[in-house]
This record gives sequence, structure tokens and C-alpha cells, in this order.
Amino acid sequence: MNPGDPASSGRDVPRLVGGLTKPATSRVAKLFRYVNRTVVELSSPDAAEMAKLLENIFRNVNIALVNQLAMLCERMGLDVWEVVDAAATKPFGFMPFRPGPGVGGHCIPVDPYYLAWRARQFGFVDRFVELAGDINVSMPRHVVELAAEALNSRGRSIKGSRIGVVGVSFKPDVRDVRNSPAADVIALLRERGGEVSFHDPLIDRFKDAGGHESESQPLASLVETSDLLVALVAHRAVDWQMVYERAGLVVDTAGTARHRNLRTDQVLLLGSGWLPAGGDSSGNGGN
Amino acid sequence: MNPGDPASSGRDVPRLVGGLTKPATSRVAKLFRYVNRTVVELSSPDAAEMAKLLENIFRNVNIALVNQLAMLCERMGLDVWEVVDAAATKPFGFMPFRPGPGVGGHCIPVDPYYLAWRARQFGFVDRFVELAGDINVSMPRHVVELAAEALNSRGRSIKGSRIGVVGVSFKPDVRDVRNSPAADVIALLRERGGEVSFHDPLIDRFKDAGGHESESQPLASLVETSDLLVALVAHRAVDWQMVYERAGLVVDTAGTARHRNLRTDQVLLLGSGWLPAGGDSSGNGGN
Repeated sequence: MNPGDPASSGRDVPRLVGGLTKPATSRVAKLFRYVNRTVVELSSPDAAEMAKLLENIFRNVNIALVNQLAMLCERMGLDVWEVVDAAATKPFGFMPFRPGPGVGGHCIPVDPYYLAWRARQFGFVDRFVELAGDINVSMPRHVVELAAEALNSRGRSIKGSRIGVVGVSFKPDVRDVRNSPAADVIALLRERGGEVSFHDPLIDRFKDAGGHESESQPLASLVETSDLLVALVAHRAVDWQMVYERAGLVVDTAGTARHRNLRTDQVLLLGSGWLPAGGDSSGNGGN
Repeated sequence: MNPGDPASSGRDVPRLVGGLTKPATSRVAKLFRYVNRTVVELSSPDAAEMAKLLENIFRNVNIALVNQLAMLCERMGLDVWEVVDAAATKPFGFMPFRPGPGVGGHCIPVDPYYLAWRARQFGFVDRFVELAGDINVSMPRHVVELAAEALNSRGRSIKGSRIGVVGVSFKPDVRDVRNSPAADVIALLRERGGEVSFHDPLIDRFKDAGGHESESQPLASLVETSDLLVALVAHRAVDWQMVYERAGLVVDTAGTARHRNLRTDQVLLLGSGWLPAGGDSSGNGGN
């Protein structure tokens, strides 16, 4: 299943069934055929579990790959969002992933480590799981660096600044906060002396990784009172137009600032840099 | 473009255009619109080049990811081909890649290193490119290990054995041998004293990585005279049915042995093990 995607939870998603014996597999598959249109019989429970892990690891690795590219693009003065959009025009052999403040949910940041743990029992180091984890886990720290860079451009420090975080769930348009990278971003900002509040249209209360719990604030007052906004999740229910009209300084990690009329040095975009970049960021990509 | 795929080379594949100035981009885009249905204008040549590199790195990394999983599945007694097929039933968020003896062609094994080289000039180590390269480059050695394991099961060594390689191009159904992993597999087998011949329906002569050149042999005589066959490329023009009816011992790195009636201990499959595995390898995966 795919939280937030109604099409992913129903009858049309294939079900993998692997039993300890062929008759067991057949009987369980027969049962599931009352529920799912497609039931795939596998040779063992291990094969079914590995297929599930492969799907999770595929996403974990490809998110990490684009997060690494985002950090490289920042150094090179390129816009990773433009690059991914351009690559995504390829009609075969490519699947686009976008950068962000890290990975969350109950699968992607968790399941790969089951496999890495089990692999070690076979004397095998799962180097992709280790690398992807290392990069994705480090993204909240990178977001904090961007926040420090943005505030620095105004002669401010994190310490003593009012920082408004927009979006705390683990991905857009879901109420799920399990393993959300927002918990790390907010805790790290508070550790450095930032006065952090948040708004999320779907979440009322949120506890950061340091155990500090707070309530969602109205968006308009958050925008008005913050020295810096940090956009973490591109919820559709957020009035981003209003955010970018009124906010003085924004770190955008979710692509919400793209294709807008922005003031000079208003937005620092993850994987890119200060917007607008020569008018290109809003004007490119046409066909 | 995608060698071997006629649909990929024509008008329907979008063209990315990034000029040094906006007017230059517009004029070149206008020209290409006579050729390609979709022309995407980017902010710079660098952005266009990075998009091309991202497409190549995506494939390089995902092939390496499944190659790593293949080696892990061998240790765990699982069949990576079954696992990938099962994961590929997921209708969203997944793209299947299959394992093999390495990567070839004029893009995937080459272009990522341009980026890694350039990244270092910005003080940035592209860890994914390094890891993916390391794994994919090591696959020919792994194939040689499988060949040694297969021959060992018959009390034989690579030295003195007649080994027939089927397929030397860099991927199925193309005549392109640039950077083909077959060049490394064959050279490594010859270094160890193997007497290597090859058959490829699309390639007449082939030079291995050690500079030894030889001619394609008729498939039937290769099958008859070899102590071991190594299937490297799943060309459709090869009579695989005949191969598996007549060959005594095969290392399959291309999935050509799957879903066939095989004799016990006839085939050692990359990413899996000895086939048939309890009758599962040919009987699984139904729905």
C-alpha cells in the first residue's frame, strides 16, 4: 500500500503470497483471490519478504541518489529540480524522484535495515542500504545548514530567531508522522537555540526528536511572526501563494517555491540555491 | 537514444536544449522542433548535460543495486529473478532491473565518471557513482567465480576446460560490443587457463580485454564441444531451447534458463543457485 494514494490500497494492487509448502501457498492464495484481483504465488515466505524489501530499498536508494545530486547541484550552481524535470521527459528507462528533507513513514527508513542486518549473518555487507541510509539520515542536518545560511544572509543566527516550519508529516497530504524527518529538523533547530513553531493543516500536535511537543499554529500568523520559514512538506492544503507573497525569508526543501514570482533573495531552495536565479527558475522547462 | 529500441531514436523522444543565453536556446530549440516533437528548453548547457548524466547514473545505480541483491540472494538461497518479477507486479513506485554480468555500451559505464570527476573539483565525492561502479565492474569476476563453482561440481578446473560463451554484445539484440562485460569475462577465463570460444548471432569477431581476438562459432558445435557454457546475453536469435536440451553444464547470467525443464545440477543461475531448485524455479510466479 501507499499511504495517501487511495488507488493503492484496494483490490487492484497485486498480493504476493509465499507459503512454507506449495499446498499452503495455494490455499492462502485462494483466500486472497476473494480480496485482490491479482495474487502472485511465490516459492517461499522469504521470496515474498525480499520482494517487499526490494521495493522499499529501491525507493530508499533512489531518494538518496537524488538527495546526493541535490547537494552536488548546490555546489555547482545548478538547479536539481530543473534537472530532474528534464530527465523525466525521457519516455523509457527512467523514473523521477525528488529531493527532500529526508525519508519517513513506516517502511522506507526502517525495512532496509532488516535486510542489512540479515545480510550480515551471511557475511554480506549491503553497501547500498548503508550508503542510502547515511545520505537520507543526514538530510535534516543539511536542512539546518540551509536555514543557518539563509539567516546568515540577514545577519542573523539560528539562536534567537523565530523559525516557522510548514509541514511535519512524512510526505504530502497524509496525516502520518511516523519517522518524519521534521522531527529531526525541528529538534536540531531547537538545539541550536531557534524558537521553532509549526503549521500543518493535517496535524494538530507534533513531538520533535528531542521530545518537545507543540501545537500547529495558524499559517497566517506563522508567516507574519517568523524570521525564517522552512517548507518541509508540499501539502496541497497549504496556501503556498499566500506564503510566498508574505514571507520575508524561506528555505524551501519541497519545491513549493518553484514557478512563482519571488523577490530577490527571498527563497533558498534545497538542491539549487537562492531564487530567483536570473529569472530562469520560473521561466524554464517550456516546450 | 536507446540502442536496439527503434522507438527510442526518432521524433518522439524529447530533446533537451540548453544554450549559453536565452536567445541562443530559443534559436536552437526552433531548429530542433523541425526534428523532434518535444523540445525542452533548459537554463544552461550544464543543466542539460546533468539531466543526461542523471538518466545514465539512475540506470547504473539501479543495475548495481540488483547485482548486489543477486549476490546476496545466492548466499541466502533465494532466487533474485523471482524476487524482481514479484516486486515488478507493484503498479506504482517501482521499476524493475535485472542482474547480469556487468554494464556496457557507450553511456552507462562511462558517463557517470565524468560527473564524479567534475564533482571532485567542487570538493564533492559522488559516493553512489563510486559504489555502483565498484559493484558493476566486479560482476565479470563474479561470473568467473560461478564458472569455477560449476566446473568444480564436475571435479574440473577452469584450466584445461573448454568454455563456450553465448553472447558477447553489451545487451540483447544489438551488434554493439563497446565496453561489453564479455570482454572481461572471456579474458579472465583465458587468464585462468580456460579454452574459450564464443557464439553470437550478431557478432562475427570479438576481441577480449586481453587483446585476444576470435571468431563466432556455430552454436550447435559450441554446445557439443564445451565442458561449460556461459550465457551472457539473452539474444532472441539464439536457440535457447536447443542450448538447454543439449548442454551438459551452463552458467546462466542472463535469465535464459528460467521456466524450462532442466536436468538436475545442469544450470547454475546468477543471483539464484543450482536449478531446478525443488521445481520452484519453473513453477512459480503464476497468478
